[in-house]
Amino acid sequence: MNAPAAPYLPPIALRPVDPAFVPALQARFGGQCSTALAVREQHGRDESPLDAPPPVAVVFAQSSTDAADAVALAARYKVPVIPFGVGSSLEGHLLAVQGGISLDVSRMNQVLAVQAEDLTVRVQPGVTRKQLNEALKSHGLFFPIDPGADASIGGMCATRASGTNAVRYGTMRENVLALEVVTASGDIIRTGTGAKKSSAGYDLTRLMVGSEGTLGVITEVTLKVYPLPEAVMAATCAFATLADAVNTTIAIIQMGVPIARCELLDGNTVRMVNQHSKLSLTEAPMLLMEFHGSPAGVQEQIATVQDIVAEHRGQAFEWAATPEERTRLWTARHNAYFAGVQSRPGCRCITTDTCVPISKLADALLDSVAEAQAAGIPYFMVGHVGDGNFHMGYLIDPANNEERARAEHLNALLVERALRLGGTCTGEHGVGLHKMDFLVNEAGHGAVAMMRAIKQALDPDNILNPGKIFAL
Amino acid sequence: MNAPAAPYLPPIALRPVDPAFVPALQARFGGQCSTALAVREQHGRDESPLDAPPPVAVVFAQSSTDAADAVALAARYKVPVIPFGVGSSLEGHLLAVQGGISLDVSRMNQVLAVQAEDLTVRVQPGVTRKQLNEALKSHGLFFPIDPGADASIGGMCATRASGTNAVRYGTMRENVLALEVVTASGDIIRTGTGAKKSSAGYDLTRLMVGSEGTLGVITEVTLKVYPLPEAVMAATCAFATLADAVNTTIAIIQMGVPIARCELLDGNTVRMVNQHSKLSLTEAPMLLMEFHGSPAGVQEQIATVQDIVAEHRGQAFEWAATPEERTRLWTARHNAYFAGVQSRPGCRCITTDTCVPISKLADALLDSVAEAQAAGIPYFMVGHVGDGNFHMGYLIDPANNEERARAEHLNALLVERALRLGGTCTGEHGVGLHKMDFLVNEAGHGAVAMMRAIKQALDPDNILNPGKIFAL
Repeated sequence: MNAPAAPYLPPIALRPVDPAFVPALQARFGGQCSTALAVREQHGRDESPLDAPPPVAVVFAQSSTDAADAVALAARYKVPVIPFGVGSSLEGHLLAVQGGISLDVSRMNQVLAVQAEDLTVRVQPGVTRKQLNEALKSHGLFFPIDPGADASIGGMCATRASGTNAVRYGTMRENVLALEVVTASGDIIRTGTGAKKSSAGYDLTRLMVGSEGTLGVITEVTLKVYPLPEAVMAATCAFATLADAVNTTIAIIQMGVPIARCELLDGNTVRMVNQHSKLSLTEAPMLLMEFHGSPAGVQEQIATVQDIVAEHRGQAFEWAATPEERTRLWTARHNAYFAGVQSRPGCRCITTDTCVPISKLADALLDSVAEAQAAGIPYFMVGHVGDGNFHMGYLIDPANNEERARAEHLNALLVERALRLGGTCTGEHGVGLHKMDFLVNEAGHGAVAMMRAIKQALDPDNILNPGKIFAL
Repeated sequence: MNAPAAPYLPPIALRPVDPAFVPALQARFGGQCSTALAVREQHGRDESPLDAPPPVAVVFAQSSTDAADAVALAARYKVPVIPFGVGSSLEGHLLAVQGGISLDVSRMNQVLAVQAEDLTVRVQPGVTRKQLNEALKSHGLFFPIDPGADASIGGMCATRASGTNAVRYGTMRENVLALEVVTASGDIIRTGTGAKKSSAGYDLTRLMVGSEGTLGVITEVTLKVYPLPEAVMAATCAFATLADAVNTTIAIIQMGVPIARCELLDGNTVRMVNQHSKLSLTEAPMLLMEFHGSPAGVQEQIATVQDIVAEHRGQAFEWAATPEERTRLWTARHNAYFAGVQSRPGCRCITTDTCVPISKLADALLDSVAEAQAAGIPYFMVGHVGDGNFHMGYLIDPANNEERARAEHLNALLVERALRLGGTCTGEHGVGLHKMDFLVNEAGHGAVAMMRAIKQALDPDNILNPGKIFAL
């Protein structure tokens, strides 16, 4: 693994930049605009295995007006703009494949208002999920959506993120009430209101959520938040086989248990997590579960789940009794990605993200794991299995083209299977650069043509994160 | 009230129709195409107080191909197409204000598949909500969204409908998983998959839901369904004042009680309902509540709510003990609209539909009721108050222009107040013909311009239900 990493290039089509553009940016933004190579390089990559030349400049927006002015300048010079939160995309969203600037909103990190009386919060896009939960704690509230990384709320909107709590609380799709957005012309619009529901025209909020920076730059977000549950219990449970663990999950969901979290790791991944997080979990297929509710309600849920687990030959629950133990367990789960990546020094990770109807989960997951094992590529496997969503992480040697091709082939087989089972190629990571072909297979040419038509109508010069979701 | 009803006209701009168009329709559709005046008139109006000339023809689609062919023919001749389910719109959605044809999908009324193992169902758009629940019952499942009328699922998608259960189960926004849609060119596309969540490109499903027939004709719907709750308890509770009833609701929601239904009627409306449905409910401000869950969970919810009720001087619960009594109670609630309309023979009803953040509900509702009382116009008031959504129905004499103007003025005051409080002009009925100006006030010119740009991109000849949502 000591050979230099070969570049892993998506289609790149840099646009010429008017020499007056960067000076114009600098005149407007001064020290908030950087052209230093290290800064540009840091903003031109993400957690995907893909490479591209860095953006020509990075603008650090400190306000919606900053963001609007940056987009307006880019519009004038027809230069691409790529919004940037914390850089945790897994699908190449942040790569400047057509050149342009990175618009970093991480300094827009104020929690603007906690509206506890309406169970809503208004935040700037650079607020991270952990920061938000710190701010909510003293109000007795929390925000459940939790991708593995400590992602920014703006980025989580852009990819329609979810995480471990989505099985009970939904994804960003269900939890964003309203947005402020900078359009491709540099205008600022608002979508949605503070009302819980509305039939007032097209659902621009849901259109922006999941649009991956291609339709607008999100500059403010109103989110639903939830009262901290009265009772929380978390447990792990080991199984003899992966099939037993998956079938337990299917039964829990089909019984309608309102489980808050239901995560699966295979034995191989438990080993990686143990090593990375200094834990001693049983190295076998494992469900991590959490139950939220009233004390009596939680006991009811647990009793039902314990019956199901017993039917599938699961071992006794190991309880995370204290909040500290719970945090340790979930932090270890959230770090499974990093545990995987660190298990093979120098590797890069190709992450899959299919999601299928719950009744098809065993079909989708077991064959995919078997294929990875047969292919002999190191991998990890974690799943938000309560949602029918799981991730394989193929840990490839970046200097080994054959291995990369083998991993991409595994990914293609896995996606094809998920689509055949009525599922989607991406449950929560987005399309980015890496799943464009899969999107066409999934949605069909007609639906993708409709997406393209919307893109062209709202961004006629194609300056907003161009080259993502579909070739354009 | 014996004077002839004056027409209540929205802006009407009939387009010329090529004389070859109707013969072409008849050649393709034979007996499935009607030009009989009675049929056209029945399809050219809805439950709104608005009038317009009827469509030139009605096509009864029996398949997606029929619908696609009808739209393709209309596209060729640039003739408007107005999708029609059961005709229960309250906002003029079905009026042929620019001429064209009505595309009746009520014969596409098959429940195509009950996928109990995935808690989903696939239906044609003409299936009604009651029909769907009949089909689900034997599977131990139900579909919660319940507008007052026995609306079609296609129509409920088009208006982003909700109803009494939305406080717990969400609206059509949260409960539509996937769609088949005929586009403006007559092509058939699919949006979404069977997976519970997805980040695969723009959320076309949510864009179509609430688009009021202006972006496509919905020809198939995949919905989430729910296990019938183990325990269901329903109760009414009377209060000394409307404020007490509203403040009880606010406290229930803020406490996070997972109440399934929380509906408010004022005393005046309870009187109308008693008369219409032969009930003997106490004629005072009243909450109708329903609790779903395990037996213990339901008891917990009830105990919490009873404490809150007592704090607000509510009377003891009156229980609807049997399923039959429950059905009678909720049928009476669903018929409140008809009870109101029948309380003033010959009247027409102007219905309001604001929705505000829950903490603002008292501000929004109490002043609006007081204004209606002061104006001396007969009215009813019902509210999905758990969502912050309530309806005033102003019962106007259609021959009395002054009264109509007074009712429209009340509506304008009420909407203005809701927007000031951070709410929306329509929680569940849609914009249609009647709330276009309100939509601009609510969303702003920039957001409405974005909606228009999407409409123009997807329907360049403006044939899909033109003149609704925004003037175009």
